[in-house]
Amino acid sequence: MLKLFNDLTGKKEDFVPLEKSKVKMYVCGPTVYDFSHIGHARSYVFFDIMYRYLKFRGFDVTYIQNLTDIDDKIIKRAHEENLTIYELADKYTELYFRDMKKLRALSADYFPRATQHIPDMIEAIKILIQKGFAYESNGNVYFAVDSFQDYGKLSRKPFEELIDSEDSPDKRNPKDFALWKRKKEDEPFWESPWGLGRPGWHIECSVMSTKYLGSTLDIHGGGQDLVFPHHENEIAQTEAYTGKKFVRYWIHNGFLTVNKEKMSKSLKNFFTIQEVLEKRSPENLRCFLISTHYRKPMEFSDENLDHAQNVLEKFFVALEASRNAHLIDNKDYSKSLTEDLKKLIQQTQSEFILAMDDDFNTPLALSHLQTLAREINKITQKGEIVNPEIMEQAHKLLWELGSILGIFLENKEGISDKLVDLILTIRQEARQSKDYALSDKIRDELNKLNLEVKDLPNKTIWYKKI
Amino acid sequence: MLKLFNDLTGKKEDFVPLEKSKVKMYVCGPTVYDFSHIGHARSYVFFDIMYRYLKFRGFDVTYIQNLTDIDDKIIKRAHEENLTIYELADKYTELYFRDMKKLRALSADYFPRATQHIPDMIEAIKILIQKGFAYESNGNVYFAVDSFQDYGKLSRKPFEELIDSEDSPDKRNPKDFALWKRKKEDEPFWESPWGLGRPGWHIECSVMSTKYLGSTLDIHGGGQDLVFPHHENEIAQTEAYTGKKFVRYWIHNGFLTVNKEKMSKSLKNFFTIQEVLEKRSPENLRCFLISTHYRKPMEFSDENLDHAQNVLEKFFVALEASRNAHLIDNKDYSKSLTEDLKKLIQQTQSEFILAMDDDFNTPLALSHLQTLAREINKITQKGEIVNPEIMEQAHKLLWELGSILGIFLENKEGISDKLVDLILTIRQEARQSKDYALSDKIRDELNKLNLEVKDLPNKTIWYKKI
Repeated sequence: MLKLFNDLTGKKEDFVPLEKSKVKMYVCGPTVYDFSHIGHARSYVFFDIMYRYLKFRGFDVTYIQNLTDIDDKIIKRAHEENLTIYELADKYTELYFRDMKKLRALSADYFPRATQHIPDMIEAIKILIQKGFAYESNGNVYFAVDSFQDYGKLSRKPFEELIDSEDSPDKRNPKDFALWKRKKEDEPFWESPWGLGRPGWHIECSVMSTKYLGSTLDIHGGGQDLVFPHHENEIAQTEAYTGKKFVRYWIHNGFLTVNKEKMSKSLKNFFTIQEVLEKRSPENLRCFLISTHYRKPMEFSDENLDHAQNVLEKFFVALEASRNAHLIDNKDYSKSLTEDLKKLIQQTQSEFILAMDDDFNTPLALSHLQTLAREINKITQKGEIVNPEIMEQAHKLLWELGSILGIFLENKEGISDKLVDLILTIRQEARQSKDYALSDKIRDELNKLNLEVKDLPNKTIWYKKI
Repeated sequence: MLKLFNDLTGKKEDFVPLEKSKVKMYVCGPTVYDFSHIGHARSYVFFDIMYRYLKFRGFDVTYIQNLTDIDDKIIKRAHEENLTIYELADKYTELYFRDMKKLRALSADYFPRATQHIPDMIEAIKILIQKGFAYESNGNVYFAVDSFQDYGKLSRKPFEELIDSEDSPDKRNPKDFALWKRKKEDEPFWESPWGLGRPGWHIECSVMSTKYLGSTLDIHGGGQDLVFPHHENEIAQTEAYTGKKFVRYWIHNGFLTVNKEKMSKSLKNFFTIQEVLEKRSPENLRCFLISTHYRKPMEFSDENLDHAQNVLEKFFVALEASRNAHLIDNKDYSKSLTEDLKKLIQQTQSEFILAMDDDFNTPLALSHLQTLAREINKITQKGEIVNPEIMEQAHKLLWELGSILGIFLENKEGISDKLVDLILTIRQEARQSKDYALSDKIRDELNKLNLEVKDLPNKTIWYKKI
């Protein structure tokens, strides 16, 4: 039974979705005004693994991630870069998708953009006013927090600490937060029943999550920094609007620190995903990110990345050494070694699932895979023979479970030209030493790959035929 | 001097942009409700070549292409696929970008979406009403065509034939066209001064083109079918709004026919780009598309594609045979052959430019490149020697000019695994015949490509190191 730590109750609980075997999952996506950093990598890689594991466990998962393309940061940066907010957001959305693709984070089913859901937000705000949870004031609309009884139930702070950072004389209560903001000079705006303006930040997630997933979500995730005010306000807005429970399980990942401090631009201890991937492979970064439990704080350092790379290389050796073992017909194998490996396979599978079922304990799950890889490497490096079918089972299990963690992501692009040149050099040398059998064989094999080879009087050329 | 056939005047004219050496270019992008077909391929490949050639000629080009993500077809298909219009549009936008990337069409500088520019459209409609060019009627807003003196100047049809297809009792004149449409049941809607509704189709291009490029565009392009009503109405709206000339050069590409008939879904003579690229390379399709002048109708057939493929293969041979010619130090070359090649290079360059300057005469430009390739192939296949520097110049020119047409687009992805396996097979055979010099060399060369090779007792494995 899968158990999740639910921040709404502060307890680890059995995971029971609203509809049997269906999971509706919403994760707060990026504000697309800048490059994504490794803090984003931690969060989105974790939720990617959650998504992969839920599917592995047989759930039919619908996964929505929003793109925040209208807020103060977007407007400010668009002015700085002399772009419309749409150009700015599209630019950084593309970079975000590029980073996520490199990190092999599976795509969410849909990424709704805030600016394309303004009419839905206006409709929701109208209803909140009608129901008495919100009020118009001087072209703004605010949510009246004292009208919502459960305000504070997620962050579990004392009511007096639940203060919105944005102060305004138009508010009845400083704790109230904006649903709609009156148009300011040089800001993008939309028509509304309260005049020209734009939505507050929080309303987009309430509206888009329920539009795409229905009134009640099974899982809502995000970084720890979103608990208050963002997620607290989402709950207030949505439950006031629908009268139903908004989210069954709230999941938040911990911070990533550099030199034991939270990453920040002012401290200059800030790394973008792009920077890290110039020096490290996506597999290396992922393997590092899952080496700590998602709820705990985690230290980003070269040493920790190096450690993850060592772990990975042992996996690669084990995977390659055991690949296609079943194609070898070898009946002369050790029965006792085979028996041991068979047991280890069963054990690895069940312990991996136990670890992941325990609130996604990825470091423990990883350690079980390491045990299996170590055993494969011991056998193959000594040249010992086990039943090929069992070795193939070990390979498949390692590959399958590692793929849930997303750490075996072969990337062999961009080297073809040099490989063909290398092969043609070998062929040239074969021709010089009159080994025409080899040179013809090479040419034929390249032809099979649709690579055309032509010997001109002075040189050999090649090109792709299709 | 570059000359363009301007559909506004019906004449071939010198191309003089508004600002010296700057070009503002807008091309009507797709309505993202379905797969792109080869008619789209013809249009967007042609405008891609225009874009590349203008840059080659030293212009600083800003290229905008819109994405129509709200109209009747979008709404209908979204209902059919049980998606929001945003999900539907994002899905087909992604597929459109994928197809264009495969066809190596350079990205426009920006692709504004209609649904993200509704407030701009509302502002423009307000002004058109204020200026007396448009009127509100029962929650709709129409453009009054008889208020705009020049209506019909692009299509040059008699005024009585300029009839909008959409009839409505709310119109004062059946020729009037909708700027804003009152909300219907089950349709997406936005707030407006005229109540809930959505924009008409034509207004998005007027608003987005001028938002991103200013009041007057140098070039506005699209398929021939857009001349009336779309582009005629764009002119009316924009010039009524700005009081300035909207577009200096209107460029439209001709139709693509299959079995001499215009492609259509009902005739089932309809091919998507994806379908064609399953059988043909992008270079093959591009080479075919540019083999007819863009204004002329063009027949899509296997025979014509085969012909283009033959042309291409001769280019590939010429390019590969002449590649890196300058690295060979050979002073024993034919002076007269070298002189001839030198002349041909100069001639090819000037005639290519003359052809392209003449309203983008791509078939003529292509034939000049074929002459150069034929000469290179004659020399290299006979094993004759010309000055290596001149041969290298021939190579570079062929590559550079062919790249403006976008027909030399090497695609060597996806074959690396098989190449490594082939190399390791060769290495294995070398080891068996005790040729350790070769087997070690292969291993070292693979290491240089970051491919790690490990010999286990029973097999050899490899993986990518980074």
